[in-house]
Amino acid sequence: MKPVINRLDARDDGFPATLRRLLAFEAGEDAHIEQAVAGILQNVRERGDAAVLEYTAEFDRLQAATMQDLEITPDECAAALSALEPARRTALEAAAHRVRIYHERQRTESWQYEEADGTVLGQKITPMDRVGLYVPGGKAAYPSSVLMNAIPAKVAGVAEVIMVTPTPDGVRNPLVLAAAAVAGVDRVVAIGGAQAVGALAYGTESIAAVDKIVGPGNAYVAAAKRRVFGTVGIDMVAGPSEILIICDGSTPADWIAMDLFSQAEHDELAQAILLCPDADFLEQVQASIERLLPTMPRADILRKSLADRGALIHVRDLDEAVAIANDIAPEHLEISTENASELAAQIRHAGAIFLGRFSSEALGDYCAGPNHVLPTARTARFSSPLGVYDFQKRSSIIQVSRAGAITLGAIAAELADGEGLPAHAQSARYRLNSKT
Amino acid sequence: MKPVINRLDARDDGFPATLRRLLAFEAGEDAHIEQAVAGILQNVRERGDAAVLEYTAEFDRLQAATMQDLEITPDECAAALSALEPARRTALEAAAHRVRIYHERQRTESWQYEEADGTVLGQKITPMDRVGLYVPGGKAAYPSSVLMNAIPAKVAGVAEVIMVTPTPDGVRNPLVLAAAAVAGVDRVVAIGGAQAVGALAYGTESIAAVDKIVGPGNAYVAAAKRRVFGTVGIDMVAGPSEILIICDGSTPADWIAMDLFSQAEHDELAQAILLCPDADFLEQVQASIERLLPTMPRADILRKSLADRGALIHVRDLDEAVAIANDIAPEHLEISTENASELAAQIRHAGAIFLGRFSSEALGDYCAGPNHVLPTARTARFSSPLGVYDFQKRSSIIQVSRAGAITLGAIAAELADGEGLPAHAQSARYRLNSKT
Repeated sequence: MKPVINRLDARDDGFPATLRRLLAFEAGEDAHIEQAVAGILQNVRERGDAAVLEYTAEFDRLQAATMQDLEITPDECAAALSALEPARRTALEAAAHRVRIYHERQRTESWQYEEADGTVLGQKITPMDRVGLYVPGGKAAYPSSVLMNAIPAKVAGVAEVIMVTPTPDGVRNPLVLAAAAVAGVDRVVAIGGAQAVGALAYGTESIAAVDKIVGPGNAYVAAAKRRVFGTVGIDMVAGPSEILIICDGSTPADWIAMDLFSQAEHDELAQAILLCPDADFLEQVQASIERLLPTMPRADILRKSLADRGALIHVRDLDEAVAIANDIAPEHLEISTENASELAAQIRHAGAIFLGRFSSEALGDYCAGPNHVLPTARTARFSSPLGVYDFQKRSSIIQVSRAGAITLGAIAAELADGEGLPAHAQSARYRLNSKT
Repeated sequence: MKPVINRLDARDDGFPATLRRLLAFEAGEDAHIEQAVAGILQNVRERGDAAVLEYTAEFDRLQAATMQDLEITPDECAAALSALEPARRTALEAAAHRVRIYHERQRTESWQYEEADGTVLGQKITPMDRVGLYVPGGKAAYPSSVLMNAIPAKVAGVAEVIMVTPTPDGVRNPLVLAAAAVAGVDRVVAIGGAQAVGALAYGTESIAAVDKIVGPGNAYVAAAKRRVFGTVGIDMVAGPSEILIICDGSTPADWIAMDLFSQAEHDELAQAILLCPDADFLEQVQASIERLLPTMPRADILRKSLADRGALIHVRDLDEAVAIANDIAPEHLEISTENASELAAQIRHAGAIFLGRFSSEALGDYCAGPNHVLPTARTARFSSPLGVYDFQKRSSIIQVSRAGAITLGAIAAELADGEGLPAHAQSARYRLNSKT
């Protein structure tokens, strides 16, 4: 019988190759999707609102005569918030508050300095003018994602955050609308798919073109975002979600099993891996998994995710666990050990690091404060959680004094000569001995 | 006769549309290049060094038995630096020094804070482990680009910067090698094209896979970078270079003409635009252009660039100039006016802002300190100059205390219930009332 979860031992000869195979994931390009998306984008670019209305009728079975009919007003969002049961509303507002507090620390400020000769150099920080936030309809519509995407943009100072979300057959998700109200989203339009991405990127009669589009979506949305990149900024196109847990064996096995589940329940491609030097504890976790699994509402997804992509890995010691974690560069890393801080200091690559046995990933997903939009598929080697910095940009400031132009002009002219760019050299030399 | 440069007036009815047409630029995808690059990348991924050696023999006419033969040693780079004429060496070192000083201000530091209940939240900043720097061979091989790409990576703390640069027929560019020595590049390999990008992204027997690839290249290199994005990080794929000058008419017309030339001389697609409310001054600048153009060594490129993509634009006043600048979001913005700081304060979108008549763009290209790798084609609306921040990444830190787990667990469980993710809820609830 196939085990409920893969079991590996880092001591085995074939371990590195086996681990590599387990981690391997490549989002294949679907030629059919690419072609469909290219057509939709072109149509929206050329025909604007008319094209968006047609696609909305076709894909979402939602007939609207004008884009005005697809607006979800601030009043409707506020009403959705008011209609929540009090405990849920309180939780949503508490989460938003904590996310806002944390992200306010990420704001970058302009700076400049003056040199002895009066030359001033610096960097000016400005928010983007307008940002589009894609929120999927249906089962993957997570209000927490609305908070995690919209709040950093508003903290950055983005003047207008436009949320688009499909409402197939006109069915709206009240929790998503409530989250939009809490997060301070400026405008909500009930459109989705590649047509919504096209409307945000190119602009239409009713929707002003944005500077950046963020938020998760299905394969069509992801393909559309890739295609409009350059016209607008986009966030990373995320792969399946992952958790890597390092445990010393002192956390209750049921907790660790449930933490693995909390990742695996996202979808069948999600990846949950445990590294532990204690063979007995690994047995206990496997026993917990086997005992708890049948009790879980999403058992079918869990079963496939754990069997295909999950693993309990026996390591020599915690140092080896850290080395493996740095190689995997996981999206979520739980360090469920006594000396979590010491181990965390050795971690070079991870989207989010959860320290200690009380820091379950679920707390970070919702309300600890840091963002839950994190780099997947080893991209934590070179990228970061979504943050305020993703909605600000920098302009270099260069104010050269008359004296500075003499010093700098000589250097620039010499190097421009070396590169064979005579107008550069002459432009610098004009400023060398000016009477102006 | 076709004018030497386009003349527009912002008062004209058709001005917005005319300006939009002038700015329009789209890098078409070349199916032949895409297919060739896909094949090269796959071959390098599968066959490693052997494939790289074959392509180097084919494309660069450079026969090498092993990759070792394509290494350009640190001693060879140091020798290239020593062999420079003293004035050029001094200029190169002075430029590198100033670029380093400026970029040291960009380093981001880790931070964390503790909440009342002992929960610690923060953000840990780490450099990337290994970065690849592409440097083109031939005419576009700019030593200043080596400085501008390598120095921010080293300031960020990247342990290994690997430079790749093709040497067709074995011909090396001594100024580029000297710049590598000055910038602290760790390793130089004489390979180029899509095969070099593939080697850096996937790794080969002789080249360890990098985390990010930066630096300019031809259409093959750009296509290869786009394709490996996700496996590694990449910098923006740059469009043609642009300058926008706002002038009040008080700067010598020859200076402004030469500043326009210094952009236009890059290539025929480069774009140089002047905004000025003084019609007489625009006439003077046009006269300067006509007088100076025949004296310029790169007159053919200048002529085509200015006639096709350049413009002298008459604006109502400087406020209108600022509004147009914010719409264009130029790569380089020169504010050549008396009150440059006041106007700069109103600029929201620009890669680099040069203030005052002494701040010619050429000074920024080489040695002012800020980076010359800047967002083109209106992408300054959402992106920034290359900087130290492009070689650092962040990890969220979440260390929840026992008391914090009770507060946060209740919120998280409530929201997880709302999203239909029961394992998330249970993982949070386990920590609510623990005896552990």
